[in-house]
Amino acid sequence: MQLKRIGQQTIDLPSRPALCGNGSFVGKKEGEGPLGLRFDHVAKDELYGQESFELAERRLYLDAIDTAIKKAGLTPEEIQFLLGGDLLNQIITASFSARDLGIPFIGLYGACSTMSESLCLAGMLLDGGHAQQVVCAASSHFCTAERQYRFPLEFGSQRPPTAQWTVTGAGATVVTMEPKVQPLAHIARCCMGRVVDLGISDANNMGAAMAPAAADTLLSLFRDTGTGPEDYDRIITGDLGQVGHDLLMQLMREARVPLIDERYQDCGLMIYNREEQDVHAGGSGCGCSATVLNGFYLPKLQNGDLKRILFMSTGALMSPTSSQQGETIPGIAHAVVLESPLMGGKA
Amino acid sequence: MQLKRIGQQTIDLPSRPALCGNGSFVGKKEGEGPLGLRFDHVAKDELYGQESFELAERRLYLDAIDTAIKKAGLTPEEIQFLLGGDLLNQIITASFSARDLGIPFIGLYGACSTMSESLCLAGMLLDGGHAQQVVCAASSHFCTAERQYRFPLEFGSQRPPTAQWTVTGAGATVVTMEPKVQPLAHIARCCMGRVVDLGISDANNMGAAMAPAAADTLLSLFRDTGTGPEDYDRIITGDLGQVGHDLLMQLMREARVPLIDERYQDCGLMIYNREEQDVHAGGSGCGCSATVLNGFYLPKLQNGDLKRILFMSTGALMSPTSSQQGETIPGIAHAVVLESPLMGGKA
Repeated sequence: MQLKRIGQQTIDLPSRPALCGNGSFVGKKEGEGPLGLRFDHVAKDELYGQESFELAERRLYLDAIDTAIKKAGLTPEEIQFLLGGDLLNQIITASFSARDLGIPFIGLYGACSTMSESLCLAGMLLDGGHAQQVVCAASSHFCTAERQYRFPLEFGSQRPPTAQWTVTGAGATVVTMEPKVQPLAHIARCCMGRVVDLGISDANNMGAAMAPAAADTLLSLFRDTGTGPEDYDRIITGDLGQVGHDLLMQLMREARVPLIDERYQDCGLMIYNREEQDVHAGGSGCGCSATVLNGFYLPKLQNGDLKRILFMSTGALMSPTSSQQGETIPGIAHAVVLESPLMGGKA
Repeated sequence: MQLKRIGQQTIDLPSRPALCGNGSFVGKKEGEGPLGLRFDHVAKDELYGQESFELAERRLYLDAIDTAIKKAGLTPEEIQFLLGGDLLNQIITASFSARDLGIPFIGLYGACSTMSESLCLAGMLLDGGHAQQVVCAASSHFCTAERQYRFPLEFGSQRPPTAQWTVTGAGATVVTMEPKVQPLAHIARCCMGRVVDLGISDANNMGAAMAPAAADTLLSLFRDTGTGPEDYDRIITGDLGQVGHDLLMQLMREARVPLIDERYQDCGLMIYNREEQDVHAGGSGCGCSATVLNGFYLPKLQNGDLKRILFMSTGALMSPTSSQQGETIPGIAHAVVLESPLMGGKA
């Protein structure tokens, strides 16, 4: 069998699995941000008609998946795997959603890197002939994340300038080998990241903790494929925020592979209006890159505004226990190269 | 491309990826059980020379992986992915281990189903040509799990008879397309499970919560492949314990596919001497099936004592938050069919 690896970490997907069907459901604050009109639905409040924040997050998750499957022209019965995760302990959003959907479930945990982790795996499973159509999903919720990782909202703790605001939202994408609708994009390559830790221990400075992992994955993909920043219309990180964004720019300059300013974008800096929305360093959470990819970027690939993008969600792999025990915060970043269907589709 | 799915949920792996190199590291209590001599190493106490139980679990994880890679005749640099998880929040055992190893990391969360979830994914990624050699790993630790899921040990809470004892231990397996040593076994098929919930809400009765998912996956695999219990030398569940074991037997009888008593085994009932070791309904935790597979079953496949087994770890997908909010406990089970290399290896 032909091995599809390029270099050390990058994997080619010669069959170019298609992304068809995208769902993006967000909270009120995200709806008031600059991308508000791009999302499928904006919830009126953080409870989204449910009795708890956890149930609200699950409802967003299910609605995003439902929308993605419908837009792909499919039914849940035709989907072979749900590849998904979220930020909550024991990924209860994803696993309880999988219970309701009845789709075989591959539970993932990559912190905020989950959306690209799931797309990488989906791409490989479809390219290998092990599934025909799958759905990938990731979510986060400001109120569930705050009480789990930091302090209950009622505590009213003050947030330092490096802190980020966890996005309330869920994104879902159907990946298929037999599109029934015009594809949004094709997955050309993926690059699975290593866990990198440069010693940040402040749980309110996740951007700095994740930037070294983002640089590591980017440099690996460039080295493996002989490409550089100029070969991508956009290089998109998940939720580095302002601190992590600036640090990644610096790390790439130092590695002599400088990113091109107007082509490098961070979902965490796009989803809110930082001047007016009091989100400090920007947005974060699995739901950040999941909703921005599905709501904003995939339509731009579909209509050819963008030809090729490098989408890389970034995750911080700490837990409250590890932080309390004085551990530093390791980061991870997985990357997928997505191409517009107007580039010709299957290789 | 030829689709490799058989029926609804089962996937054939025509290239029969090889399991080469197994590591099983356990705690003192597990070393004193009936399988004590089968494991690579038995720790002297729950701290395993570390400063915290969490660090002890990580050391077991790293040592099991290190041993598996060495036995496979490889070095960490030759391994392309670590597919792993554990029971702790944010899978800190797996993710911090991945940091130390420097191997690209695919983080999984399947609760106690993690060992078979990782083997299923490894089988598909290798069969698809997306990797040449990977390592799968899962762990649990009695002391870290108790304080996370139930009560701190110091609290001294009383355990009901349905409760299970979380195994302290880590198991790791190298899966490869190019064995450098005599393979232990080959992966022939896998079946990804659905999330099933029949309404159990008692976090001290995980066996009952997981048994319906185990039955669902077994029945799917049998239906998809036209096989039955008589086609497997052993059908092995992860950690149903006595309550779940009996319930699975009953569910399969009711479905008119009765399991064969002497061929159905549960790792949770094998790892301890229940009469003497005060473990109530049996062992549990990701580490239970991970260590029993690697320490006990893989050598029996290698030497031909067993020709074909169905290995199915079982997971309960609840969190303390979901339990406190009155949610029931969904279960999941993923299955792999493993064949002895003496059966001929590659198809």
